[in-house]
Amino acid sequence: MMLDKIFKPETVALVGATPGEGKVGNTILRNLMASPALRVYAVNPKYENILGLRCYPSMNAIEDEIDLAVIAIPAGNVPDVLVQCGAKGVKDVVVISAGFKEAGREGAVLESELIRISREYDLRLVGPNCLGVIDTYSNLNATFGRTMPDKGSIAFLSQSGAFALAVIDWSKAAGVGFSKVVSLGNKAVLNECHFLEYLAGDSDTRVIAMYLEDVSDGRRFMHVASELSKTKPVVVMKSGKTEAGSKAASSHTGSIAGSVEAFKAAFEQSGVVEAESIEELFDFALTLSRIRSIKTGGGIAIVTNSGGPGVMAADAVEEYGLKLATFQRTTMDKLLPLRLANSYNPVDVRGDATSERFGTTLEIVAEDEHVSAIIAILSPTAPVDFDKASRYVLAAEAQKPVIPVFMGGESVTEAVELLREHGITNYFDPVRAVKTLKAVCDYEQARVYEPPPHFDVDTRRIRKQLQDKQVLDYELLTAYGIPVPAYGKAVSADEALEIADRIGYPVAMKILSPDIVHKTDVGCVKLNVQREAVKDSFFEIVRRGERYTSARRIEGVLVQQMICGGREVIIGMKRDRHFGPLVMFGLGGIYVEVFRDVSFRIAPFSKRDAEEMIRKVRAYRILRGVRGEPMSDINSLIDILLRFSQLCTEFPEILEADLNPIRVLESGCYVVDFKMVTSID
Amino acid sequence: MMLDKIFKPETVALVGATPGEGKVGNTILRNLMASPALRVYAVNPKYENILGLRCYPSMNAIEDEIDLAVIAIPAGNVPDVLVQCGAKGVKDVVVISAGFKEAGREGAVLESELIRISREYDLRLVGPNCLGVIDTYSNLNATFGRTMPDKGSIAFLSQSGAFALAVIDWSKAAGVGFSKVVSLGNKAVLNECHFLEYLAGDSDTRVIAMYLEDVSDGRRFMHVASELSKTKPVVVMKSGKTEAGSKAASSHTGSIAGSVEAFKAAFEQSGVVEAESIEELFDFALTLSRIRSIKTGGGIAIVTNSGGPGVMAADAVEEYGLKLATFQRTTMDKLLPLRLANSYNPVDVRGDATSERFGTTLEIVAEDEHVSAIIAILSPTAPVDFDKASRYVLAAEAQKPVIPVFMGGESVTEAVELLREHGITNYFDPVRAVKTLKAVCDYEQARVYEPPPHFDVDTRRIRKQLQDKQVLDYELLTAYGIPVPAYGKAVSADEALEIADRIGYPVAMKILSPDIVHKTDVGCVKLNVQREAVKDSFFEIVRRGERYTSARRIEGVLVQQMICGGREVIIGMKRDRHFGPLVMFGLGGIYVEVFRDVSFRIAPFSKRDAEEMIRKVRAYRILRGVRGEPMSDINSLIDILLRFSQLCTEFPEILEADLNPIRVLESGCYVVDFKMVTSID
Repeated sequence: MMLDKIFKPETVALVGATPGEGKVGNTILRNLMASPALRVYAVNPKYENILGLRCYPSMNAIEDEIDLAVIAIPAGNVPDVLVQCGAKGVKDVVVISAGFKEAGREGAVLESELIRISREYDLRLVGPNCLGVIDTYSNLNATFGRTMPDKGSIAFLSQSGAFALAVIDWSKAAGVGFSKVVSLGNKAVLNECHFLEYLAGDSDTRVIAMYLEDVSDGRRFMHVASELSKTKPVVVMKSGKTEAGSKAASSHTGSIAGSVEAFKAAFEQSGVVEAESIEELFDFALTLSRIRSIKTGGGIAIVTNSGGPGVMAADAVEEYGLKLATFQRTTMDKLLPLRLANSYNPVDVRGDATSERFGTTLEIVAEDEHVSAIIAILSPTAPVDFDKASRYVLAAEAQKPVIPVFMGGESVTEAVELLREHGITNYFDPVRAVKTLKAVCDYEQARVYEPPPHFDVDTRRIRKQLQDKQVLDYELLTAYGIPVPAYGKAVSADEALEIADRIGYPVAMKILSPDIVHKTDVGCVKLNVQREAVKDSFFEIVRRGERYTSARRIEGVLVQQMICGGREVIIGMKRDRHFGPLVMFGLGGIYVEVFRDVSFRIAPFSKRDAEEMIRKVRAYRILRGVRGEPMSDINSLIDILLRFSQLCTEFPEILEADLNPIRVLESGCYVVDFKMVTSID
Repeated sequence: MMLDKIFKPETVALVGATPGEGKVGNTILRNLMASPALRVYAVNPKYENILGLRCYPSMNAIEDEIDLAVIAIPAGNVPDVLVQCGAKGVKDVVVISAGFKEAGREGAVLESELIRISREYDLRLVGPNCLGVIDTYSNLNATFGRTMPDKGSIAFLSQSGAFALAVIDWSKAAGVGFSKVVSLGNKAVLNECHFLEYLAGDSDTRVIAMYLEDVSDGRRFMHVASELSKTKPVVVMKSGKTEAGSKAASSHTGSIAGSVEAFKAAFEQSGVVEAESIEELFDFALTLSRIRSIKTGGGIAIVTNSGGPGVMAADAVEEYGLKLATFQRTTMDKLLPLRLANSYNPVDVRGDATSERFGTTLEIVAEDEHVSAIIAILSPTAPVDFDKASRYVLAAEAQKPVIPVFMGGESVTEAVELLREHGITNYFDPVRAVKTLKAVCDYEQARVYEPPPHFDVDTRRIRKQLQDKQVLDYELLTAYGIPVPAYGKAVSADEALEIADRIGYPVAMKILSPDIVHKTDVGCVKLNVQREAVKDSFFEIVRRGERYTSARRIEGVLVQQMICGGREVIIGMKRDRHFGPLVMFGLGGIYVEVFRDVSFRIAPFSKRDAEEMIRKVRAYRILRGVRGEPMSDINSLIDILLRFSQLCTEFPEILEADLNPIRVLESGCYVVDFKMVTSID
């Protein structure tokens, strides 16, 4: 694999090695030398010898072939060393040094120099401005951290070096292990995608946990993460939620859709599990390293020796949208003779229960076919022997995933340690246990991939319109098979009447001018026009339009069928800087503006995504029909969403769009009006 | 104080002492004997001597005066022992024994026997079915737990004994101390209120943390908690959220308002801080034991040596509705020469910062008058000495509350211990630190108590109406000064016309019958009636009404002024079984039914509460006016809420009510229709 030499080098050169204790170049050297199998070369022209190791004046002076160069020298000298690496045939480099993009304009120039050299010599460069990389299985610690983490099945990628340090330090105390730790730094060359691709084939890694502040290439991230998450769970904590939708945007969608929404949609569509806190990041990663799937159709069983915590868990199961198992008849037959406080789910074995009674109950419940996972709660009552209890958990685990909630401190330490040796994480708080099961379910559901549909569309004429800077009219939508009310373009009052007669009354009339976006605001829209008013309306609209637009670019008046009744919805799009077309759905008016009751997906998306977008908004009930009103035609709406998704994907020139309002009737739906902002405007 | 002998007894008798190791009666005895100052008496007719202590056959046999009796014998024998206690003059009793209300019908009968005896002898009884009580300052451990917690300033009350066990066990490992631990058990006699009242005067206790499943007396709880929380923070974790609003309820309010909403409102109104998880319960309690108030007007400063965690904290500050401080000019003047990565808030002292640079920055920021609290984040970088850093935190703490976020495991252990000795809790996760500051703000804001207003109302006539089982008509509302449209009751078509002429057209006409609740559904409501249609409408309404009600209890037709325009809101009430009148507010129609966008308060409530109810619903923006529409008359709405609050308080006969719709105009608002369910129906 491509990045093997970064994680499993046989020879490493440290450029910037130094004898000064506590200094970065000294700590890295010690960390590297801690691996007996590794041939380590120190490079620094100032010294002959460091820590008993011969010190070379430059990379060139080393005769041996070097797999990995680690660079920890002042930023300004890094380009020279990179050229030396390139010349020597070293392809893999970790640049620890800071003072690049993060340090201002000069640093940014220096960083582009790194990128240029890397391209020239085909270097795989980690950083700059990073903590380094760790591989616990090859025993490589190429960081200036003070600790080597324990072995484990989680690969941890962090965009913050300091956060990586903190996590490693914490992991030792918490007994959490890692397969690899990568501090991504400024991601000048290698970014999260390269590592995700590599980790797909890394047999030491079962789960990927990431701390991200942004992504280098959103579309690629979605592609790589989708592929990887089919086989290995990816859990991400994203911080830096500052980039909100812009208040100055000219579309509703533009004003609502910010980068938080884009990332959330991208994660969901790529099967990435999002963690909201550091605690969740590792709670989810640890549980997903063991449990990837929960028998669908089944429910969660709770076995507890104390009522209170059992209730907490049951509450949480409901709150997180999971389901409590209803036991089979045979299970009840086996449980009832045990004379428990409660034989129904949550099963309460009572405060005076021994570990044996707890174990027997666990065994019976684990055999139930309606049970897909078990939360096993034990308070430290006198009759409980936690070591025994942990063995019962392990036995039940052979049947069904069990999340132990051994509630206590010292009393449970040994048992928790034993469970951990078997890869099982204990939670003190039943609510945390439930949340991790929810993460497993989320992961499982997101893994089902479905490709976006493709509609045959003749886009040539539309492209021409765009190039000619013509008004983007309803033909754009009809070309994509998106239904609009019957319409015609009139350049004279007589023509308007002719069109209206053909359409039937009443009609709507709107100005057609590239200069007028907010048509209603300047009185250039007339609704419910009857036959006798058509001609007058034509003249009035044109007159008002002429007053408004100095360029007098008026192309005529649109005469349109009036669509009444049904529900108003809005579909919009804003081009996100990371992920591209971010499509929004919501019910029109107040629901979008006041309640922000909207859902998002990155286009192109699948039919399943479109269905979810609609179902996710809380006003969905209104579409389904409240107070005995008929159900709206949701299938037609799904069709519009999918066609619009393709339109946005195929026309990057469209920067923002609102199809608003769309009227959803009992049968069919129509885009009554729309607004678009293009890059050609 | 009343409960002094429970927590600080000089003599204790344990009824049910036993030599059997590991048994409840043996563990309690050992725990009691661990206090050298305590005179302990073992009671058990089967033994002469236990653990070197003389064993008495009964309570009577002890010559000494007994302050506290602890009872751990089979449930059936407890009443006899209680009588013995009473006869001997022992007033304070802890009943550990299980087998009462929690065990079914027989147990419940036995429990009511305990209550009866306690009343007769004036006993202060803790339990039954509990773990017991602990006072770390008097060194009393009257529980069957294996551990005595450390001293601390938090009193912990738990409705679950097993949960109390778990918390004590955890607290030792986590270094958290308690002043007292009380396992409330079945709360047959003493409940949370008695202990809360006692703890107000307990100098060892600074904060009360509670785990509750219900409250014994909701109104009293609100009163006691309000009083206590003025001086000591009360943090509650409530579980058992199963009791939802009833789908079968006849009012909107009844179908939405469940016990979760009632508890939430009661906690908010009583200044109780609610925790959503075990973690939050102790996070909040620990921080509130130190910080009770944050300088209002100021903001939160973040000082960090790593960008990522700084961003996490800043995100959380925004998410939880807190505010980042904007530094004073003088602060910036002092920070800029330090050449930090960022001198603005969040202040980034850079990854290469020493503890000294961190400390200097902390000091400068703490002096800023715009800063009300500081979050101090440190990742374990090489130059950081956590012990030094913790001393800087202590120094800054003298100026402003500081929440340290030392991120790490082993590296930070000693520093964290040092901070803890000074009562300062460290958090690994910056988000948790922010959440606890939010809890402090919540506590601070809730402490401002304002009494409900009182309106002079002549309620005699209404009481008579209620007793006479007459239709509750608009007079009920007008008596309370709640504005309704002009109206009159017509018993003939001519009278209807006369009334309508007086009111002005159009009018609304509705049947008046105690048998017809859903008037619109049976066609007994006519809206927008013009003069020419008044008589016909009268006949039609009466005809339809007669068809519907077999008893023919039709009292006439209500002729009412039509109120048009404005916004529809709903105010409702449901009598909660714990707290009484739970008043709901929301915007009419879809907002209540689909979005559940409603707010709750327990009546009677203050003007401030009423304002909050309105501001809390997300549709509040609609009342304030969107899209250039005028602002609704919110003051009139507040007035209706307060008058309705008094109405519900003074008429317990009203079980459920909906004032729906209420039309809020630009000036004034009117209750257009209402529904009530009374206990007299």
